[in-house]
Amino acid sequence: MSDLDNSLDWLAALKWDADGMIPAIAQDESGRVVMFAWMNRESLQETVTSGHAVYWSRSRKRLWRKGEESGHFQKVKAIRTDCDGDVLLLAIEQVGGIACHTGRESCFFNELQGERWLPADPVLKDPKEIYK
Amino acid sequence: MSDLDNSLDWLAALKWDADGMIPAIAQDESGRVVMFAWMNRESLQETVTSGHAVYWSRSRKRLWRKGEESGHFQKVKAIRTDCDGDVLLLAIEQVGGIACHTGRESCFFNELQGERWLPADPVLKDPKEIYK
Repeated sequence: MSDLDNSLDWLAALKWDADGMIPAIAQDESGRVVMFAWMNRESLQETVTSGHAVYWSRSRKRLWRKGEESGHFQKVKAIRTDCDGDVLLLAIEQVGGIACHTGRESCFFNELQGERWLPADPVLKDPKEIYK
Repeated sequence: MSDLDNSLDWLAALKWDADGMIPAIAQDESGRVVMFAWMNRESLQETVTSGHAVYWSRSRKRLWRKGEESGHFQKVKAIRTDCDGDVLLLAIEQVGGIACHTGRESCFFNELQGERWLPADPVLKDPKEIYK
């Protein structure tokens, strides 16, 4: 892949995949990587204008305003892209301190131990209390 | 997507995409996200057995032993996956302190400023000195 052409308009400079998507990594202020999801142009534009992370739900095939059900919004502080412009990195403030639908701080809670993935982080809030 | 079934063997538990790939995020010990790339089963297995990050280069269609040309290997300290098991997060030690082919610490050096992506990190080493 060729390097990002930063003379281009910001949306045109990005390399969208065949489905019009780009992967997005959300990292909170402590440096914790809390989530990974996908964006299309519309969700990225709304993210920039609203200041809150908006993803594209590939399973539900619609805009996914993170926090719309859980209240766990993500305030976007900065957006970066990589050398070839095909991935986004969002610096976010995680409202409620919980990004994962399992009630954990981060979705990345399964750690490889030998031949198994084992949950390595505590559940901070019962999902039944989050999604009422 | 259904949650990860951590009773399964670690490779079977992961959700590989239609091309047999899974995205992988590399994060160094300072918390900096330095790279994003793709893995197939073979590259992930070699990563685990060798202790060094091995990706699948989609452009070159071959295993990409990170550092094979630059010397900038990534020692893998831990591997996590997310709630639904379709993304990997690698805790790495970045040999040489440079992950990016542009000679920067991280590939995520372009920051959105208004309507443009602007390089926000210094080049630590001239790429001509890295790839001789």
